[in-house]
Amino acid sequence: MTTPLTGDLLIGARTIARPERQPWAVNSATGEVLEPRFVETSSADVDQAAELAWQAFGVFRRTSPDVRSQFLLLIAQKLVALGDELIDRVHLETAIPKVRVVLERDRTVFQLRFFAHVVREEQFLDYTIDPARPERLPFPKPDLRLRQVALGPVAVFGSSNFPLAFSVAGGDTASALAAGCPVIVKGHPAHPGTSEMVGRAIQAAVAELNLPEGVFSLLTGGIDAGVALVKHPRIKAVGFTGSRGGGMALVGLAAARPEPIPVYAEMSSVNPVYLLPAALEARAEQMGEDYVASLTVSGGQLCTNPGIVIALQSPALDRFVASASATLGQVKAMPMLTAGIHANYANGLAAFAEHADVVLEARGIETGKINCTPGAIFSTTAKAFLNDPALSHEVFGASSIIVRCDNVDEMMQVTESLEGHLVGTLHLEPGDTEMARTVMEVLELKVGRLVVNGWPTGVEVSPAMVHGGPFPATSDSRSTSVGTSAIRRFLRPVSYQNVPQTLLPDGLK
Amino acid sequence: MTTPLTGDLLIGARTIARPERQPWAVNSATGEVLEPRFVETSSADVDQAAELAWQAFGVFRRTSPDVRSQFLLLIAQKLVALGDELIDRVHLETAIPKVRVVLERDRTVFQLRFFAHVVREEQFLDYTIDPARPERLPFPKPDLRLRQVALGPVAVFGSSNFPLAFSVAGGDTASALAAGCPVIVKGHPAHPGTSEMVGRAIQAAVAELNLPEGVFSLLTGGIDAGVALVKHPRIKAVGFTGSRGGGMALVGLAAARPEPIPVYAEMSSVNPVYLLPAALEARAEQMGEDYVASLTVSGGQLCTNPGIVIALQSPALDRFVASASATLGQVKAMPMLTAGIHANYANGLAAFAEHADVVLEARGIETGKINCTPGAIFSTTAKAFLNDPALSHEVFGASSIIVRCDNVDEMMQVTESLEGHLVGTLHLEPGDTEMARTVMEVLELKVGRLVVNGWPTGVEVSPAMVHGGPFPATSDSRSTSVGTSAIRRFLRPVSYQNVPQTLLPDGLK
Repeated sequence: MTTPLTGDLLIGARTIARPERQPWAVNSATGEVLEPRFVETSSADVDQAAELAWQAFGVFRRTSPDVRSQFLLLIAQKLVALGDELIDRVHLETAIPKVRVVLERDRTVFQLRFFAHVVREEQFLDYTIDPARPERLPFPKPDLRLRQVALGPVAVFGSSNFPLAFSVAGGDTASALAAGCPVIVKGHPAHPGTSEMVGRAIQAAVAELNLPEGVFSLLTGGIDAGVALVKHPRIKAVGFTGSRGGGMALVGLAAARPEPIPVYAEMSSVNPVYLLPAALEARAEQMGEDYVASLTVSGGQLCTNPGIVIALQSPALDRFVASASATLGQVKAMPMLTAGIHANYANGLAAFAEHADVVLEARGIETGKINCTPGAIFSTTAKAFLNDPALSHEVFGASSIIVRCDNVDEMMQVTESLEGHLVGTLHLEPGDTEMARTVMEVLELKVGRLVVNGWPTGVEVSPAMVHGGPFPATSDSRSTSVGTSAIRRFLRPVSYQNVPQTLLPDGLK
Repeated sequence: MTTPLTGDLLIGARTIARPERQPWAVNSATGEVLEPRFVETSSADVDQAAELAWQAFGVFRRTSPDVRSQFLLLIAQKLVALGDELIDRVHLETAIPKVRVVLERDRTVFQLRFFAHVVREEQFLDYTIDPARPERLPFPKPDLRLRQVALGPVAVFGSSNFPLAFSVAGGDTASALAAGCPVIVKGHPAHPGTSEMVGRAIQAAVAELNLPEGVFSLLTGGIDAGVALVKHPRIKAVGFTGSRGGGMALVGLAAARPEPIPVYAEMSSVNPVYLLPAALEARAEQMGEDYVASLTVSGGQLCTNPGIVIALQSPALDRFVASASATLGQVKAMPMLTAGIHANYANGLAAFAEHADVVLEARGIETGKINCTPGAIFSTTAKAFLNDPALSHEVFGASSIIVRCDNVDEMMQVTESLEGHLVGTLHLEPGDTEMARTVMEVLELKVGRLVVNGWPTGVEVSPAMVHGGPFPATSDSRSTSVGTSAIRRFLRPVSYQNVPQTLLPDGLK
């Protein structure tokens, strides 16, 4: 049996209760406020969590990889132990179908275990020993040894759309803890009860392993708490998944600090999908069905959603559109994560629908229920797309636009015009290889991952995964938020010159 | 015989001559203007160089590691072939003694060869293959392959104090070219003739290997050219070595672009040196001599200069100060790199000398010559140091301050108060081990390199070197500007999902 939800803050080992509380938890499918109400973080709370994190850092950064590995495994175990209570609460707060919540929980648990493995392997420490050569001329060469060390306490901003995998115990938290950095999570107000359940699991793991309490805190609250957290001098890096506006605000705050710090913000991505001619000819209908499946999964509320489709005009493209339209016509609208996200989605669709150069090709099924607006597929010409940058911007939700190109030259102009994205996808058959090569040479400059004959949704936790990409997909294209190297975001190298054995860190002796 | 200097810009394969020219080259030891005069870069020049770099990028990023390796070796060879003419010109423009110029030339050549080796090894490409598992449940696992790709054209800002090793063909240029990024150098106006000689050598290497001309350009000019370069949309990263003010200006410009880009700025470092009690007891006199050697080499104009000495009050510390004072009393002032640097140095010394809590312990020998002010050693108490942050700021030149601590607690307070530095140094004997451990635990958070029983000046080009550190030593503590991983500053990862063999990049097939 789990602890009942209280709505309190979790600062180190403590829980902070106060009489004033906010009705953040809302059942998105009904609009009802869910109990309990939540304590809002004050700047004094931020300060306390940050100072505790700093105290903890001195010890936690020097824990052995084995201890950190155990810690991650214990968090994973406690998440599993939350069982259906966690699944139910996530569903209640986010309206994400339970079958998908279970998949996300499993992925979150896998990710914690994955980083437990990454830590134990110790590869990320980059141990390098370059021995002395006292005989070298004109000067003796000193003994030099290098390793990576943890950056310091990390602020993690959970996302609304992955209440488990990119939230309190998500990839940012797992990789920061793996690196030896204490974590302060600013929980997303769209799933505060979920955050508390997961936060209490981490808090219990900290206590069970006798780690310093400041290794983890969970703060709930609005923009003010987040601002105070990013500005706090004890915070040394930020992980964020969310909107472009939110991410760039944090980037700006971090850069304006007396000591600027890195911000890893995953922000905005529309993920262009190319349907090349031979592939369209061979399997337009199947691609139309698969496209709609990728577009509408989780109500389209995925950062890897296929938001732009690029193809040459042809009868086969018309067959693809017909198949996609027929498929979407049978997909019911589902409640979106929050009323705010739903309103933005509805406004985004309205702007496309009213655009003189945009055609509405298909809609999903209206249900008339709260926070539900069905998916939509639009189309436009390459010329119109090139003339109006608004047509390339993200509409978060199950909205996608097909760009009809008259020729390869137009297709390449569209490609050149793209901003950075997480994923670029090509559908091709052997006859498309040369055109694919031409597109890939440009597309590779614009994305973090290239997919062939698949769909961009679905992000593997793998040493070869890149969940990142050029701006504005992320604020730092040199990093990934999923996969082995996510840990590198929270490390920096230190070199030890002629340091005697007794004073060298363990791995460098 | 080398081409005579013309003062023209080098944009791709072209040389740009114009009638209006600036008298940038000055013999710092005499104040005389040196011929020729130099063309100032216009914003149209920046645009042309940037567009050429972008065109070149499409080809250069896909050159084989072998070709890039050959390119770096050829540049090294051409630098060597410049022989005494290069050494003489550097000396004339910078007043750096010829014996040190030769060392710096050799180090620059070694560095180019080092990166030629790093490229050939291909480790920086991070090739990772995670094969498909079609049988995996609940979904098949795709084939995922990862490699690092070049970021794009890089703007390099040469430093005044290393006219070869951190300038036109210095570490930033070598590592960016190694990564597959075209380079546009904004040459430092303190050594424009040196820059032209080196730039022409690179230009010739580009032509000889039939590389696209835009792989390299050299622009001379003032602040306007630098601003236009950093703001140019074709530039994707910046390398800079110089002042904190200059570096932070570039960081601000890069962050305010529609597409923000990374800036690797090495800026300000005072490099604390700890003299622990047993070491002082054992060898105060020798340390005093070695300290002054490290302090005054190259007129103290090194970013790794020992600018702060921290020690417990003791008779042994007084012996150290006496020895250092006697040694410095025999060191003649040498002409500094530029009149501006000299003026800043003289002003910095004056501010220390007038400070109520600062004692002038020793001065070098006045020569009365232009741009010459001798070295200076000051001392202060830990209390005064903690009360006035100005005492911890860099005075670029042979100035250093000794912080006399009453006890270990004060020493640790001083340590906690430090900003980020490139290097932290400890002098210790076996009896100091416990105190050293206590200091190191905090000092490690503040520096990129820890040195024991040596001096911070002297930076090895090694796979285990870190020439970097927390802010304000650099703008990005996760990177190093010297050593193998310097190349990683100009790379980002890309993942290839189910991409067929014919379309995979060579190393991932």
